[in-house]
Amino acid sequence: MRKPQILVIGYGEAHCPPEAYKTARVVGAEVARQGAVLVTGGLGGVMRAASEGARNEGGLVVGIVPQSEKEYANPFCDVVIATGIGHARDFITAYSADAVIVVGGGVGTMVEASAAYLQRIPIVSIRGSGGTADKIADSYLDDRRLVKVEGETSPVKAVERAIRSSSLSPRV
Amino acid sequence: MRKPQILVIGYGEAHCPPEAYKTARVVGAEVARQGAVLVTGGLGGVMRAASEGARNEGGLVVGIVPQSEKEYANPFCDVVIATGIGHARDFITAYSADAVIVVGGGVGTMVEASAAYLQRIPIVSIRGSGGTADKIADSYLDDRRLVKVEGETSPVKAVERAIRSSSLSPRV
Amino acid sequence: MRKPQILVIGYGEAHCPPEAYKTARVVGAEVARQGAVLVTGGLGGVMRAASEGARNEGGLVVGIVPQSEKEYANPFCDVVIATGIGHARDFITAYSADAVIVVGGGVGTMVEASAAYLQRIPIVSIRGSGGTADKIADSYLDDRRLVKVEGETSPVKAVERAIRSSSLSPRV
Amino acid sequence: MRKPQILVIGYGEAHCPPEAYKTARVVGAEVARQGAVLVTGGLGGVMRAASEGARNEGGLVVGIVPQSEKEYANPFCDVVIATGIGHARDFITAYSADAVIVVGGGVGTMVEASAAYLQRIPIVSIRGSGGTADKIADSYLDDRRLVKVEGETSPVKAVERAIRSSSLSPRV
Repeated sequence: MRKPQILVIGYGEAHCPPEAYKTARVVGAEVARQGAVLVTGGLGGVMRAASEGARNEGGLVVGIVPQSEKEYANPFCDVVIATGIGHARDFITAYSADAVIVVGGGVGTMVEASAAYLQRIPIVSIRGSGGTADKIADSYLDDRRLVKVEGETSPVKAVERAIRSSSLSPRV
Repeated sequence: MRKPQILVIGYGEAHCPPEAYKTARVVGAEVARQGAVLVTGGLGGVMRAASEGARNEGGLVVGIVPQSEKEYANPFCDVVIATGIGHARDFITAYSADAVIVVGGGVGTMVEASAAYLQRIPIVSIRGSGGTADKIADSYLDDRRLVKVEGETSPVKAVERAIRSSSLSPRV
Repeated sequence: MRKPQILVIGYGEAHCPPEAYKTARVVGAEVARQGAVLVTGGLGGVMRAASEGARNEGGLVVGIVPQSEKEYANPFCDVVIATGIGHARDFITAYSADAVIVVGGGVGTMVEASAAYLQRIPIVSIRGSGGTADKIADSYLDDRRLVKVEGETSPVKAVERAIRSSSLSPRV
Repeated sequence: MRKPQILVIGYGEAHCPPEAYKTARVVGAEVARQGAVLVTGGLGGVMRAASEGARNEGGLVVGIVPQSEKEYANPFCDVVIATGIGHARDFITAYSADAVIVVGGGVGTMVEASAAYLQRIPIVSIRGSGGTADKIADSYLDDRRLVKVEGETSPVKAVERAIRSSSLSPRV
């Protein structure tokens, strides 16, 4: 039985406020502490912060980068998936998630959340982290109401909720 | 010199109100009349309506379907691109557009509009057509303000605006 | 009823001998004369040669490029599909073909032929054009014998055979 | 510093002879014993055999499936990447490899080997394992001679060679 794979998405490197970086690091650390595998898009900003947090707690970190070269991944990834398909890799990160946690983010984050939503993968949004996270917390992404984006203020509770809502229980 | 490629996106088959279908057909017809190539996701709903409209006016219709089989395309496509990459084809439709026109739509439409936005491709939204189109008309999709989604009420003007804002002039 | 889409594949720009370029131009011209749509990978070498040939005969030319920017396409494309997925677009060119014609080529050409073979799309190889074309002419690509690669020496006959073997008849 | 990622490719479920299955299981076990991460396409046949072998030795197993649902992966995967892009995922498995080992295989295996070759990723082929592996052992895949496919008869030596030729040293 594999462990739940928790995808953390949000602000990219160029637009990541220090506060969101800190939050993402706590989220990543919690993913590791609660016995799940961390999955991210493998680059900077929130992706790097979460990876750093999980790595520091001894967790397993998977980075799925848009490029065809593994070298683009941040240094906290234990496993690097090099897709070579550019932004379209946002669908792969989403499909590979048992649940998603959103920390801030712009339109790319919205794409990943939308991909998860279309696949009915549970999404938890960190309230107060800005951008996409605040925009979609406690709402449905369209009229089909496929899955509700749950809002949480505490990173610890967000990770608990993500793991609980994934169809897999952790192996601790 | 090739003609401008105008992408029309919006409600899929299962969720397309009759009013949006009519609007999309008029948009497609206008794309053909104004000498541009129509590009769509190749399936039903707004994609089919726009294709039907353009075909009736003797325009060139390109359908880019998610499946690996061309047979999934609606019967109004002159050229069918079978991608086999599922929803990720939304990035291909967006990248293949010189400009985009939005007619209603759900979260999949938001993904395509976001992909175009990230690439700085001009987007025109039909006001009053519902869903995503109304949600994003006259706004920026995130704080980076990469490109403004222009709102238009008239399909004719929307097509004029889309062609004008594309970096290519039509060959009529 | 749409016209058959004939995909021409082979040597890329950096490795295309003048003889293969000439052959590909004749093949492209024949595709247009025989009333089919030409599809290529949209770049240089055999892709450009075939596009030039078809364009000169007034045919419709579709280029499907690996990049996310349409500007990479050769100037003979009437329709440009920008995929942004790199080499993986070889599957899209293959899936979009009603039949494939091979002119020389290296390992990338083998990938495209293999993708067509896996989908049971008819393949015709120009004998004497070198590389992959000569390697696979008159053979099966693996033990499953899904579809035989037909060898032809004459470009005219190769195009006739490709169109005949596609499940669509041309609209002339 | 992450561990080397060794991709094992070959016969799919429907065409995998018992002998190749056994060989692949030994290869997978060796990948784990020698301290590397096993990467496969996540499905049956050689992919499953290698995963089973690595899992039994306590190694880390990553499966990259063509579907958008993680449930298609074989039960020996610790991490599942669901791509949703069909056969085009062969490029992702290749790009994610620090080195590749080939056990038999048909045309799909040739595509993966070709993708690795184009990216100059080291390839080791198990001599005597049949199909693609025997076809490409000790040869270059095209005239550009980008990287030579090394042939090895012993699975243990094949894994040693793969790890040594990857640019990363194992963390044992």
